[in-house]
Amino acid sequence: MDVKVLGSAAGGGFPQWNCACQNCQGLRSGQIRSKARTQAQVAVRDSGSAWLLLNASPDLREQILSTPELAPVHFPRSTGISSVILTSAEVDSVVGLLHLREFQPFRVFATPSVKRILFEENRIFRVLERAKPPVIWEDIPQESWFSVGSAGNGNGLRCRAVNLGGGHPDYVSDALRSSLLPEEAVIGLVFTDGKKQMMYAPSLSGQGDEWKTWARSSELCFLDGTFWNDRELIDAGIGSKTAREIGHIPLSGRNGLLEQFNDAGKARRVLIHLNNTNPVLDEDSDQHRDVRNRGWEIAYDATDFNL
Amino acid sequence: MDVKVLGSAAGGGFPQWNCACQNCQGLRSGQIRSKARTQAQVAVRDSGSAWLLLNASPDLREQILSTPELAPVHFPRSTGISSVILTSAEVDSVVGLLHLREFQPFRVFATPSVKRILFEENRIFRVLERAKPPVIWEDIPQESWFSVGSAGNGNGLRCRAVNLGGGHPDYVSDALRSSLLPEEAVIGLVFTDGKKQMMYAPSLSGQGDEWKTWARSSELCFLDGTFWNDRELIDAGIGSKTAREIGHIPLSGRNGLLEQFNDAGKARRVLIHLNNTNPVLDEDSDQHRDVRNRGWEIAYDATDFNL
Repeated sequence: MDVKVLGSAAGGGFPQWNCACQNCQGLRSGQIRSKARTQAQVAVRDSGSAWLLLNASPDLREQILSTPELAPVHFPRSTGISSVILTSAEVDSVVGLLHLREFQPFRVFATPSVKRILFEENRIFRVLERAKPPVIWEDIPQESWFSVGSAGNGNGLRCRAVNLGGGHPDYVSDALRSSLLPEEAVIGLVFTDGKKQMMYAPSLSGQGDEWKTWARSSELCFLDGTFWNDRELIDAGIGSKTAREIGHIPLSGRNGLLEQFNDAGKARRVLIHLNNTNPVLDEDSDQHRDVRNRGWEIAYDATDFNL
Repeated sequence: MDVKVLGSAAGGGFPQWNCACQNCQGLRSGQIRSKARTQAQVAVRDSGSAWLLLNASPDLREQILSTPELAPVHFPRSTGISSVILTSAEVDSVVGLLHLREFQPFRVFATPSVKRILFEENRIFRVLERAKPPVIWEDIPQESWFSVGSAGNGNGLRCRAVNLGGGHPDYVSDALRSSLLPEEAVIGLVFTDGKKQMMYAPSLSGQGDEWKTWARSSELCFLDGTFWNDRELIDAGIGSKTAREIGHIPLSGRNGLLEQFNDAGKARRVLIHLNNTNPVLDEDSDQHRDVRNRGWEIAYDATDFNL
């Protein structure tokens, strides 16, 4: 299994267009040691077959262009990307679908609730129907494995959704929301090629523990590194809500992710979806050292994993 | 008046993620002399005041980050961008609004029809309401000047919409479409600071001639450089429609833009919104030379104009 991190930041990226926090200004001015990061985006494939995109980030055009392996090879148009698998209907999960509007057939896997949000209240995504044949939408089932391999060739990866808690996006109407399933709002994804297992969970709300079992039995897991501190946005003067209130367990503190997932079994643990305010982005910070000393890795853009 | 070209390509950009046409592969492999281009995006300001964005391209995050003048200066968050002015509801005009979702107040100017498309059928744009105060929407009037200067300081630019023909996007429902005004579908924008005038018209459908009067009386005009040939997409094996059928007069041929706007008066003419298939992108092509010999300029990213 090949895994590529194309983007590793939370919504807004790092630096963020309107953010002058210590990290963003430090990065712009070169006064902190850190790396610019586009919004979280991962690609995975069964070695030798087509690529699957895990979500479609708002930075997807730039991310594909900076990854030569994803360039088309057949004249006049083509792609080595066969599918996109959505973990939520949040802006940073779905907007990149609009970068893929260029008359290109592929498959989109989503929970029925996420599909309904895009189909019933966001007609702009109909531009994907311009492709001939049009983009095909497939339902992600609950609590069962489904095939995401290339149709017809019998091999490829299998995937399984894990409910991560959290709610549907705030932009959804109350009328539609009342008919959506909460357990289809935010999912993690587990992939297996029959030998090795990988988990992707960029948003951990703190509800439920099922994800830990899947993460521990994986060789590689990407977990929610959005915030260091529960009050991070409040302390930075940026927001009025805690990390937990917006659906992310913080890394530090009592019942934070570092404490909750200290015993990871065989899993290689990689933090992803890092918010621009998170002090672990500064490679000289105490928090960065702390995370690394505990055996965690911190994702950055354009890195490859092979399982 | 300061004008910045942040992006100069048509939808999909150059190269386009799934395109292996002669231009895109030539650029990737370095076998043609050309420049990569992000999707069309222009910023304008009355010198010394805040920036106005003309449309919000899907590449807007990347475009803002590569323009130091647009970086925030005030901790913790701020921006020197006061407004976005939309010329249509097409994907390449509006998607960048979602890059600007980070709790930042600003103003969006749109025709009432474009606003209805986003509000009534695309709830995802409600994320702009997260800002405190929320993003303010302002109607673009027909056939009259309106102020786009910074509220309260009394100076700034005035703007005027010019109907360019063309229709509302294909993703709009039939039900909504029947209640929208066709003349509010695709507009050009004329700006004046009282001394100098600039026109922005990245999509010329060929319907109507009013735009020529405004372009001729401008010091600088950006005009539709999407396609060289009416059959360009068909001949490249990419599409089944002519340039005119999708709302763009081609540059060449009988009644093409070069013929129609040969006498430009005092206006400096710059082609923008160049599709990746357009041979003028290749700086060694006959078509590139032809355009330059006729006195036209060809926009590329990260260029400044001062009027």
